[in-house]
Amino acid sequence: MAKNYEIDEVDLKILSHLMIDAKTPYTEIAKKVYVSGGTVHVRMKKLEEMGVVLGTTLQLDYSKLGFDVTCFLGIYLQRSSLYDQVVEELKKISEVVRIHYTTGNYNIFIKIHCRDTNHLREVLHDKIQKVDGIERTETLISLDESMSRPIQLG
Amino acid sequence: MAKNYEIDEVDLKILSHLMIDAKTPYTEIAKKVYVSGGTVHVRMKKLEEMGVVLGTTLQLDYSKLGFDVTCFLGIYLQRSSLYDQVVEELKKISEVVRIHYTTGNYNIFIKIHCRDTNHLREVLHDKIQKVDGIERTETLISLDESMSRPIQLG
Amino acid sequence: MAKNYEIDEVDLKILSHLMIDAKTPYTEIAKKVYVSGGTVHVRMKKLEEMGVVLGTTLQLDYSKLGFDVTCFLGIYLQRSSLYDQVVEELKKISEVVRIHYTTGNYNIFIKIHCRDTNHLREVLHDKIQKVDGIERTETLISLDESMSRPIQLG
Amino acid sequence: MAKNYEIDEVDLKILSHLMIDAKTPYTEIAKKVYVSGGTVHVRMKKLEEMGVVLGTTLQLDYSKLGFDVTCFLGIYLQRSSLYDQVVEELKKISEVVRIHYTTGNYNIFIKIHCRDTNHLREVLHDKIQKVDGIERTETLISLDESMSRPIQLG
Amino acid sequence: MAKNYEIDEVDLKILSHLMIDAKTPYTEIAKKVYVSGGTVHVRMKKLEEMGVVLGTTLQLDYSKLGFDVTCFLGIYLQRSSLYDQVVEELKKISEVVRIHYTTGNYNIFIKIHCRDTNHLREVLHDKIQKVDGIERTETLISLDESMSRPIQLG
Amino acid sequence: MAKNYEIDEVDLKILSHLMIDAKTPYTEIAKKVYVSGGTVHVRMKKLEEMGVVLGTTLQLDYSKLGFDVTCFLGIYLQRSSLYDQVVEELKKISEVVRIHYTTGNYNIFIKIHCRDTNHLREVLHDKIQKVDGIERTETLISLDESMSRPIQLG
Amino acid sequence: MAKNYEIDEVDLKILSHLMIDAKTPYTEIAKKVYVSGGTVHVRMKKLEEMGVVLGTTLQLDYSKLGFDVTCFLGIYLQRSSLYDQVVEELKKISEVVRIHYTTGNYNIFIKIHCRDTNHLREVLHDKIQKVDGIERTETLISLDESMSRPIQLG
Amino acid sequence: MAKNYEIDEVDLKILSHLMIDAKTPYTEIAKKVYVSGGTVHVRMKKLEEMGVVLGTTLQLDYSKLGFDVTCFLGIYLQRSSLYDQVVEELKKISEVVRIHYTTGNYNIFIKIHCRDTNHLREVLHDKIQKVDGIERTETLISLDESMSRPIQLG
Repeated sequence: MAKNYEIDEVDLKILSHLMIDAKTPYTEIAKKVYVSGGTVHVRMKKLEEMGVVLGTTLQLDYSKLGFDVTCFLGIYLQRSSLYDQVVEELKKISEVVRIHYTTGNYNIFIKIHCRDTNHLREVLHDKIQKVDGIERTETLISLDESMSRPIQLG
Repeated sequence: MAKNYEIDEVDLKILSHLMIDAKTPYTEIAKKVYVSGGTVHVRMKKLEEMGVVLGTTLQLDYSKLGFDVTCFLGIYLQRSSLYDQVVEELKKISEVVRIHYTTGNYNIFIKIHCRDTNHLREVLHDKIQKVDGIERTETLISLDESMSRPIQLG
Repeated sequence: MAKNYEIDEVDLKILSHLMIDAKTPYTEIAKKVYVSGGTVHVRMKKLEEMGVVLGTTLQLDYSKLGFDVTCFLGIYLQRSSLYDQVVEELKKISEVVRIHYTTGNYNIFIKIHCRDTNHLREVLHDKIQKVDGIERTETLISLDESMSRPIQLG
Repeated sequence: MAKNYEIDEVDLKILSHLMIDAKTPYTEIAKKVYVSGGTVHVRMKKLEEMGVVLGTTLQLDYSKLGFDVTCFLGIYLQRSSLYDQVVEELKKISEVVRIHYTTGNYNIFIKIHCRDTNHLREVLHDKIQKVDGIERTETLISLDESMSRPIQLG
Repeated sequence: MAKNYEIDEVDLKILSHLMIDAKTPYTEIAKKVYVSGGTVHVRMKKLEEMGVVLGTTLQLDYSKLGFDVTCFLGIYLQRSSLYDQVVEELKKISEVVRIHYTTGNYNIFIKIHCRDTNHLREVLHDKIQKVDGIERTETLISLDESMSRPIQLG
Repeated sequence: MAKNYEIDEVDLKILSHLMIDAKTPYTEIAKKVYVSGGTVHVRMKKLEEMGVVLGTTLQLDYSKLGFDVTCFLGIYLQRSSLYDQVVEELKKISEVVRIHYTTGNYNIFIKIHCRDTNHLREVLHDKIQKVDGIERTETLISLDESMSRPIQLG
Repeated sequence: MAKNYEIDEVDLKILSHLMIDAKTPYTEIAKKVYVSGGTVHVRMKKLEEMGVVLGTTLQLDYSKLGFDVTCFLGIYLQRSSLYDQVVEELKKISEVVRIHYTTGNYNIFIKIHCRDTNHLREVLHDKIQKVDGIERTETLISLDESMSRPIQLG
Repeated sequence: MAKNYEIDEVDLKILSHLMIDAKTPYTEIAKKVYVSGGTVHVRMKKLEEMGVVLGTTLQLDYSKLGFDVTCFLGIYLQRSSLYDQVVEELKKISEVVRIHYTTGNYNIFIKIHCRDTNHLREVLHDKIQKVDGIERTETLISLDESMSRPIQLG
């Protein structure tokens, strides 16, 4: 069914509002989008069934939780065929929050959150660089997230 | 007040549950964390006041919305003193969802979502590379997000 | 109309044969693809109208024509906003046969054919590097084209 | 014989016309080049015997065939002596259309056509990076072929 | 105890003076910082107990001792898991004065002092590059130390 | 006079001891080096006059003073002729402790000490990258100083 | 005339001997090459007239003349169109012995001889980097010339 | 003896003249340098004994001998400890005329002369890249030697 359903402007507008605050009551969204509350409900159910909406989550200020260091790591493998195997190992490291398979210089590109540079050293030296098949890593430390916002829909 | 309040294990456990599903009722979380529903309420209020919790948002499968191309862009400026000015311009480009100030080769590191490679060309050529002060960009296209998960707390 | 027409297996098979030898008579192709000669004719006309088929060309052995040096050039611009202007200038240089707008390190990526390294020096020094807005070029000389074949269809 | 035959201006002019449209009748070319139709015929036969003309092919708009992503890949080998062996494996991958042995950073430089970035991921991850002896690949995605033309002769 | 003691402005001022000349008599420092000589003595004892002050050392002009070449070496390992093992070997090389574990391109970053470029060749070729696990080194030769000063405290 | 004086083994041994602890009494050093206390005194005076010994300083554990982040910065200038002018500006930045003029990729190579990554961002963004003539900086963060020792003499 | 003269095996053999020792008497060479002394004389005259032989020079051990530091410098220009102008300035710097126009990363590639690293600093800082139009230089110091021999002819 | 002999201005002037033309008669040099012919003779003998003068050689225009392509190759080894072994193999390749052990990115830096790009391909593919222990090579092709002159003495 999902195949035949096409996402329209109304869907995008509903999603836009919920991305800013996922707890906005459907009745309030309905008013803003000029549809009935029932329509919001039906649309969201469909978007969930289609797998467009995966869930809701909290937005946290990591630095206020003591995670001061956000890093991007470019990983070079000894052979690019080791990708799957290394990804499995990286998933076991709790500080890793994103794993990307990217074009460009690196075989793997990941994002990690650490408390401070000591914590980063531990993660790099004791966890990531112990993974079999990794030749070298390059670390981009994010000194400031100057902007973070949801994708602009509709 | 926030200064004197210290985030404890109970806070972290509450946040962990809500990061997986921000709509979990507080009563359910209370049971899992072995505290009263009132405690969950009080703690969440405090975490919001402290700015630890910034809000709730939807988790979307961007590819199902037609955004097939996720890119990281490393931006080289003509002079690094142009950072603030260029960031202001980048914020006006709707496809840009993250802007980082990073150590490493690039002056600025951003994340963008595009529908396809044609859309990417438009964003790069007509928007980003038209920004005054940008010398060059390097594009890492994410061919696969092999993992995406919230930070592991507690 | 092109919009509603969908390219099918028969089209791809016809194209495959003509890519190997564009002069193959339609009757011969018809036999190989198990359709009538008329069908080949109709299909090819449609593919031309749709702009899928742009024309026919010769395949030459450039080295036998005295063009011994094939190069790829990565071009860095002084500012990436100069792209369009520089491309216009590059088009005027007869040795340039392809101009690509690519992701990655370079602003522009081109292919050129030269007779020998002296000719290459002239093209680089007297033509390409005289173009306003070019900061630097990197040259990859193809010492051997170990394979060149049409795209595999169907 | 080919050795003693020297390609002259008339040959180059004939080739120039046929490169733009390989189906132009020889009589028409004869008029443009101010020679007899027989001369065009004789010359072309000689150029084919000499191996200057390898054949005729179609010029296609790949994106209209659903191949939206053209990439150049720089391949680093584990040891440069593996060149021949890796080239043999690359030839078996249908998406690969050119293989170059180049000076510069890479051991091998190839061109591939893919339908979209998902297809590219499959080709990279499941085919190219599975080839024994490849250490790493760098991908330049062509976002736009701003020009494509035959070599300028004569 | 160290945990509860907080370093204050007086401590920093005392340290600042001693960093410029570690032999300044405490009575002289006391006058400059407007405290008693006893206070200087007590503070320094505490800072030593806390491990803030590790000792005193000479400042030498290495070039006057015949060490004309100061280098920084970026070391690439065959696998990043070899870090500890390689560091142990590097410690045995007397010309190595600093070993850093850094983010960025290199696995290890070290500083060495050599008498001249012949000595540097010996150290690189006969000592460092003989260490098992090192793939490659990059050498930054310091042609001039345009400034060297203690950290600015207080 | 310094010109004619040649540093001998006794000088080097005296310096070696004082580099480990600049406060070691000369009588104690005399015993270790098998010379008279007067000789130690005379030699040190000569070495000071010659400019070999520049002074004495404290060795501090910077992290215990709250300086957790040690960085090396490679600086690219807009033109290499700006070296002197940029160095003058860098000297005014208190966090900068070393400035090197090096061979290799960078125009300038410096060392800085910061309290944490927030402090590093301030230094980079508000101080260093505001310096006229700097095009770009690359940051190597030292996550661990695995060894720091004086040069081995004698 | 030079045009019609083709260099043969005898010429190459004569040149080979003279490249090893340009002062070898022609009679001696004649014996080794199995021709008459007159032939050697005639051939050498021809080779000089053709511009194959440019002259004779001494082979020196530069380090014994106090030139301990041989460097290759890759020069990046602000714009590649400045090549001719910068080369004119480089020719005025006496330490520069070779200037190449190369493919690859650099605009210009030169070779210099210096007495020591102090001299190198002067040449780089006071001479080369003062040249208008130079953005950056990269220095490869030759720590050892493991082999130097004439080209192998014949 | 060589140790005690110091090269003076007269020596340097004599060498300067002979570097431009090694066949200049000593009497002629004597006149230019304002010394007797005997002095020139004595000095040159000493410089030869000391190993300052290694011999005389021809200066050739390689391109007139059919060697059109001069290249510099940066060689990366699989492990830097393989240096000696790889150098031995490189010495056996007749096209290699210089081998340098350099600081910087490469393990080895060599110079080769080839007739054309086909010859270069053979040397790279069939000779150099077959050497055991070589991981990768980077080729800088010299398109023009804009200057070549002896070192400036005196």
